[in-house]
Amino acid sequence: MSAKATLIDTTKQDKAAVLELIAGMAKARYEKNARAIAAPYATDAAIYNLAPPLVHHGIDLAETQAWLDTWDGPITIEPRGVEVTIAGDTAFAYGYMRMTGRKKGADRDVDFWMRETLCLARNREGWRIVHEHTSVPFYMDASTRPAFDLEPESRGR
Amino acid sequence: MSAKATLIDTTKQDKAAVLELIAGMAKARYEKNARAIAAPYATDAAIYNLAPPLVHHGIDLAETQAWLDTWDGPITIEPRGVEVTIAGDTAFAYGYMRMTGRKKGADRDVDFWMRETLCLARNREGWRIVHEHTSVPFYMDASTRPAFDLEPESRGR
Repeated sequence: MSAKATLIDTTKQDKAAVLELIAGMAKARYEKNARAIAAPYATDAAIYNLAPPLVHHGIDLAETQAWLDTWDGPITIEPRGVEVTIAGDTAFAYGYMRMTGRKKGADRDVDFWMRETLCLARNREGWRIVHEHTSVPFYMDASTRPAFDLEPESRGR
Repeated sequence: MSAKATLIDTTKQDKAAVLELIAGMAKARYEKNARAIAAPYATDAAIYNLAPPLVHHGIDLAETQAWLDTWDGPITIEPRGVEVTIAGDTAFAYGYMRMTGRKKGADRDVDFWMRETLCLARNREGWRIVHEHTSVPFYMDASTRPAFDLEPESRGR
């Protein structure tokens, strides 16, 4: 096998590992398992969440559990159109995630698409999230309401 | 010079080049120059903006000019706490940007901090933005209003 073929093969495996990590993020939320949610993050990961403050440093287990407890039943995350770029032991990935579920006391489901960017570093244990950026755009009118009604375009993915 | 010292030196230079690109992004907005705004982006860059839709593919000059025309005077972007990671010809950077300026017809300035993530690839001409994610978190209460009142924490930077 040529060196180039090996490189392509390795990159393919690395991309698969990052996509597996993303699938694991969804599974952990579906199962509402705070430890499994925290597992792929670096201790001091810079996390830009939907909710304030501007940044969270790493995942706080108690805070995550409190958030999980506001949901009635599973939280479903459906990733779509995720593009992964690998550069040695560094990677980034971005795409869309549909989040659905029922908040306790609510009379209908939460259901919207968010944008997700992940920056990753590989150590001996595998890929770790060092930065996450999750957001919903907002309408630039008097309402400044989050655009919960958007859907990813279909580009053949 | 050892191979390691050379590598550190190169990484330092690469980080400086990415920070220079970010300074150029601010300058282009201050000067309200649509071409200079578009210059550092890859043609098909996946741009997650403050405003809908979920994604813009590359910078549209006419759309950028129309946006610039909604401002009265310069738009100031002040980057803060930007962390840059270099991995060969791939890089990512994230931090905060304070945006200030006056919208036409408004009686006071726009002034808020946003989160910014950039993913970059280097070609023969230098670093290009292949992905940008800009956002403001929103309050998870009945208002769902954007959190325009947040400021980056000071961590000695």
